[in-house]
Amino acid sequence: MNYEVPEKMKAWVLGNPGELTLEEKPVPQPKKSEVLVRIDAVAICATDLEIIENGPPAMIQGGLPFNKGFTPGHEYMGTVVKLGPGVDEYKIGDRVAVEIHAGCSSCERCREGMYTSCLNYGKNYEGNDKGHRANGFTTDGGFAEYAINNVNTLCHVGDNVTDEEATLIVTAGTAMYGLDTLGGIIAGQSVVVTGPGPIGLMAVAVAKSLGANPVILTGTRDNRLELGKKLGADYTVNVRKENAVDAVKKITNGEGVHYVMECSGAPNAVNEAANMVKRGGRICLAAFPSKPVEVDVAALVRNNISLFGIRGEGRSAVHRAASLISEKRFDASLIHTHTFGFTELLTALKYSKERIDDAIKVVVKIPE
Amino acid sequence: MNYEVPEKMKAWVLGNPGELTLEEKPVPQPKKSEVLVRIDAVAICATDLEIIENGPPAMIQGGLPFNKGFTPGHEYMGTVVKLGPGVDEYKIGDRVAVEIHAGCSSCERCREGMYTSCLNYGKNYEGNDKGHRANGFTTDGGFAEYAINNVNTLCHVGDNVTDEEATLIVTAGTAMYGLDTLGGIIAGQSVVVTGPGPIGLMAVAVAKSLGANPVILTGTRDNRLELGKKLGADYTVNVRKENAVDAVKKITNGEGVHYVMECSGAPNAVNEAANMVKRGGRICLAAFPSKPVEVDVAALVRNNISLFGIRGEGRSAVHRAASLISEKRFDASLIHTHTFGFTELLTALKYSKERIDDAIKVVVKIPE
Amino acid sequence: MNYEVPEKMKAWVLGNPGELTLEEKPVPQPKKSEVLVRIDAVAICATDLEIIENGPPAMIQGGLPFNKGFTPGHEYMGTVVKLGPGVDEYKIGDRVAVEIHAGCSSCERCREGMYTSCLNYGKNYEGNDKGHRANGFTTDGGFAEYAINNVNTLCHVGDNVTDEEATLIVTAGTAMYGLDTLGGIIAGQSVVVTGPGPIGLMAVAVAKSLGANPVILTGTRDNRLELGKKLGADYTVNVRKENAVDAVKKITNGEGVHYVMECSGAPNAVNEAANMVKRGGRICLAAFPSKPVEVDVAALVRNNISLFGIRGEGRSAVHRAASLISEKRFDASLIHTHTFGFTELLTALKYSKERIDDAIKVVVKIPE
Amino acid sequence: MNYEVPEKMKAWVLGNPGELTLEEKPVPQPKKSEVLVRIDAVAICATDLEIIENGPPAMIQGGLPFNKGFTPGHEYMGTVVKLGPGVDEYKIGDRVAVEIHAGCSSCERCREGMYTSCLNYGKNYEGNDKGHRANGFTTDGGFAEYAINNVNTLCHVGDNVTDEEATLIVTAGTAMYGLDTLGGIIAGQSVVVTGPGPIGLMAVAVAKSLGANPVILTGTRDNRLELGKKLGADYTVNVRKENAVDAVKKITNGEGVHYVMECSGAPNAVNEAANMVKRGGRICLAAFPSKPVEVDVAALVRNNISLFGIRGEGRSAVHRAASLISEKRFDASLIHTHTFGFTELLTALKYSKERIDDAIKVVVKIPE
Repeated sequence: MNYEVPEKMKAWVLGNPGELTLEEKPVPQPKKSEVLVRIDAVAICATDLEIIENGPPAMIQGGLPFNKGFTPGHEYMGTVVKLGPGVDEYKIGDRVAVEIHAGCSSCERCREGMYTSCLNYGKNYEGNDKGHRANGFTTDGGFAEYAINNVNTLCHVGDNVTDEEATLIVTAGTAMYGLDTLGGIIAGQSVVVTGPGPIGLMAVAVAKSLGANPVILTGTRDNRLELGKKLGADYTVNVRKENAVDAVKKITNGEGVHYVMECSGAPNAVNEAANMVKRGGRICLAAFPSKPVEVDVAALVRNNISLFGIRGEGRSAVHRAASLISEKRFDASLIHTHTFGFTELLTALKYSKERIDDAIKVVVKIPE
Repeated sequence: MNYEVPEKMKAWVLGNPGELTLEEKPVPQPKKSEVLVRIDAVAICATDLEIIENGPPAMIQGGLPFNKGFTPGHEYMGTVVKLGPGVDEYKIGDRVAVEIHAGCSSCERCREGMYTSCLNYGKNYEGNDKGHRANGFTTDGGFAEYAINNVNTLCHVGDNVTDEEATLIVTAGTAMYGLDTLGGIIAGQSVVVTGPGPIGLMAVAVAKSLGANPVILTGTRDNRLELGKKLGADYTVNVRKENAVDAVKKITNGEGVHYVMECSGAPNAVNEAANMVKRGGRICLAAFPSKPVEVDVAALVRNNISLFGIRGEGRSAVHRAASLISEKRFDASLIHTHTFGFTELLTALKYSKERIDDAIKVVVKIPE
Repeated sequence: MNYEVPEKMKAWVLGNPGELTLEEKPVPQPKKSEVLVRIDAVAICATDLEIIENGPPAMIQGGLPFNKGFTPGHEYMGTVVKLGPGVDEYKIGDRVAVEIHAGCSSCERCREGMYTSCLNYGKNYEGNDKGHRANGFTTDGGFAEYAINNVNTLCHVGDNVTDEEATLIVTAGTAMYGLDTLGGIIAGQSVVVTGPGPIGLMAVAVAKSLGANPVILTGTRDNRLELGKKLGADYTVNVRKENAVDAVKKITNGEGVHYVMECSGAPNAVNEAANMVKRGGRICLAAFPSKPVEVDVAALVRNNISLFGIRGEGRSAVHRAASLISEKRFDASLIHTHTFGFTELLTALKYSKERIDDAIKVVVKIPE
Repeated sequence: MNYEVPEKMKAWVLGNPGELTLEEKPVPQPKKSEVLVRIDAVAICATDLEIIENGPPAMIQGGLPFNKGFTPGHEYMGTVVKLGPGVDEYKIGDRVAVEIHAGCSSCERCREGMYTSCLNYGKNYEGNDKGHRANGFTTDGGFAEYAINNVNTLCHVGDNVTDEEATLIVTAGTAMYGLDTLGGIIAGQSVVVTGPGPIGLMAVAVAKSLGANPVILTGTRDNRLELGKKLGADYTVNVRKENAVDAVKKITNGEGVHYVMECSGAPNAVNEAANMVKRGGRICLAAFPSKPVEVDVAALVRNNISLFGIRGEGRSAVHRAASLISEKRFDASLIHTHTFGFTELLTALKYSKERIDDAIKVVVKIPE
């Protein structure tokens, strides 16, 4: 095979908010611990839409500036075509999927393995290069022909996984990370997943793969709930037709569940989750409403409930999710609904945003 | 010494909401795994006031009925005067302090050691006796001359600890349980305690005893903050005079802290805590506002923050707090401000409720 | 159905070491938190043979006396036929499998959920009844028509699980407990199981069900290793033909594995396990040699290795294993090789002990 | 102050095994994430003696070659005199103590925060630079005027800590890491420390600082045991005069302890530790015998005992130990017995090795 790397590449570049244009850029060069990935496919995430409109998600320690001239896209896969100095973890020709975050390796959080909470988040620019990368968030991402990846953000992809499926590994990894934060004891435990978006559907699949029983999925659209069943949900609840808390209580003989994976971002989601878990239960927050919401804090305290906000896909969960997918424990490709070519990215984004034709995961192939 | 037990005792008994009268009751008899405690002193907690006015705190799985004819009071200490069948963990004459909750020992939570989240909470009555006890909450408590205690709710008190100090052990145990839920790695880590009530002040003392550095206490009253300094706070912040988040950031060179122990129940407490911790930080909720409040859930998710609601004093933390007090690691008696006789309970409650004369912990001695 | 309970029952009773006779005994009566189980099937475990010959396994805090007049057998299943006072967790007619240990609920270990390490182990006799039960170890077990069980030692069995399969749930639960102690993060991680006895084979099945990848089984007999493959092993190593450590290193590209489940009790097993795991790896000890063996402690220290001795089937792992079996995640019945009638128990024990006809799990049906 | 850096420095350099000579070397230059430390004091550790005689400690994945031309010494402190590119965590003039290990930041263990178990241990040489450093083990250490340190191996030292005391921080950090691996819940729990060498004595001090109660120290020399009392031991046991297990049982009313920190490396230490802990207890192995020893594995399994081998000073425990020392929770300088000048290193090593004049920690000041 030919892995020759050209000097220039095509990349979608952010202009003013909402403006994305296809431009020619130099192909970047991998440094120590980095490789160059030729991107073969990239999926579209709701966060891409957010970044394109509003810039990278704000965080406690200083919002990040809107990143003009930058290439978004973070759910990609491809082929290693060039190695930075000293890299031997991957070799040219390896098929790889990605996780988003490479930590700085020096801050307190990175030192304890929490690299998605790197305290030097976003510090990767000249003059203050702490080495943090969040590809497609703060460093150039996957809406391009090539991208740089720290080896920490890669995982191998087997031949039995298609390009399209491989773009979904990071989403499954996020779901896995959420279940990890709930303590890792999932088999034989009951789990509610609220919200059948991509992360919610992958949470159903991963939880069921780990032996959760039952897995209950709540949502508003029957077709999504049906898909949840195919991915492993034992029960589904259409919250337009039933009260979600009542339904969960009924399914669990009034007991409630061990865990809730909150993937809806609905305004009352935290309160409902607190009423779905048993006393002493745990809730993972993998989504959030766009503005502050009323929360019954007393219910959390009186009932010994823990809440775990998760950022991204930490604790190497992407690797473990990749293993489940490679072993065909579930069919991630069920959430892949549409495919477009590289030059059709704006259409692909539109399909994703407006859920045209019931789009869930829209994948862009490169080159088309 | 004479530990003869009479047939009748004096006990304060709940009538209609808010009505407490001193009555004569039969002295109860200890069953298997239980002892009879002669109460020597009892402290007043804000929850006592709540129970007297409104009944035991409601919980997810069915509110508990207002408990007419019942004796409240849960922060007591005393002397073992009679043993139930098979008890050899304690002997007659032992001085003991208490924790509140004895679990049913059979439900899923008790089986994993989370006895304050017992799924049979409140089920201790004829016809449905699962053995759960929350003395002073759902079973007769300490505003009386004698009380029954499961051995699981007792801990030994050394001679170097006064009766008054011993009544404070359960409060220190609650603070210890909160720090345990934060993961137990406290030494050399930074902690904010919000709210200098009894639990907050004990959280300062326990955190500092465990090596937290720095310990920062926030509150509205300078005299309470001063007390916090005596108990180990390295810094105090009067939130009437400074913005609490700004002050914490300034003290920590802009970094924020590892942990927040939320002991204020203030409406904006969760949001402020989320802005005080570093990315990836943990917050223990040991207090709560009286009604739902606005919470910026997105801040929790984006910053990988965990929240731990705690109910009571689990994980045998009361025993470990008793050890610290017995070793004089801090002077719990600093929060004891007033003492009354047994017949003066109503006055004692009034002092506690209205914070007359800057009352913090008001202790009632039995007999006077 | 008729669940009438007779006054007398047949039970195998221990005489002098090695002597087991079929006798008539009164059917025991369930007390608080207990039920009477009509035993429908019981499997034979190596520990049964040990108990019959030598008495219950000695422990640190005082060996237990050889238990004349007692009925062994601990891997049983059956039907609830009578409820003790207050029991509502089970109802008459429920099919149940068992775990062995009910803790005292009051000691330090039980209070933290470690009921198989109950500090009152064996104290269930008149005059010192702390309530601990280890059925078939220290209290009457399952080589009988009926047995008493604390509700804490029961789990429900669905109709889609046969009697024979249900007797294997406790073995699967022990394997699950072992994996739990390794931290619960199993999916996508590499596991070696050493020793294809019943626990080892169930460890293969459970580890694979939880997503371990690869699962490597080592042993000396090809037919057992073949069975391991059917239960989920990705690789098997016959240690008579290859060096086990070398083989594991080769399979894992020289890296070693994350976890070893040591189920062989071989004299060099700990040292080999320490050489099979990666630096920082974890080893669960679920078996042990009959006498002290040479261990290279330096290898454990220099390589940051943790060892977890496990006693029995704690942390409610039996319930979670039952869920996997009920969901047909693996076919536990593959390790069931022989069935005998109740009066043929001595023959069944002989088959099990001498591995006649390649016996693995020998099950006794009651009545025949 | 003048922090000018010369081009050449004096450094002790390893020749053939056992040969150490004072030579002139170029002062090394800090790279990305590194600083140059001017060494002000260095303490001698038993491992230094081992490295000088036999080379760096062997590990599972390939022994390391005997390191001719290399400078040992790993317990040092000093002053930051030059910053590598991008360093802003430290500034010139900062007083610092060190930890030994900087991980590669890319291997599986580093990614989960276990940097002392870096899977690229020792790979820091040209052509295979994974960035791992174990200063004084595999990269040049502190028996020199200057040394390079990754910022991950530094911690700030306050003015209230002397140079000599600061050299002991890493030893206290190792003890802290050991206690961390035991789970972090130390206050009010009972701890035996076996072996009053420097790590054992620091383990006493740290455990007592964290609230352990009681702390029991065992050893063979009364003067060391006396020192243990000054550092916080509640009880000491001279194992030449009493049976250690019996003594621990007697002190704990027959119950045994929660934790053992094994710091002796005695041949029977693991077996004794297993008999000292309660059922379900945990043992940290911080020392080891020079060759394989007989271990009663059955005792570990039957009693649900966990063993944690620890390598070095992980989990940022050095920072937390530094905090305790800075707050004067214990007086680390009690174990510092002798001071020599830089040119007297060979004498200092001899004092340390032969325990001349009851030497415990021998410190070398630079320049003299």
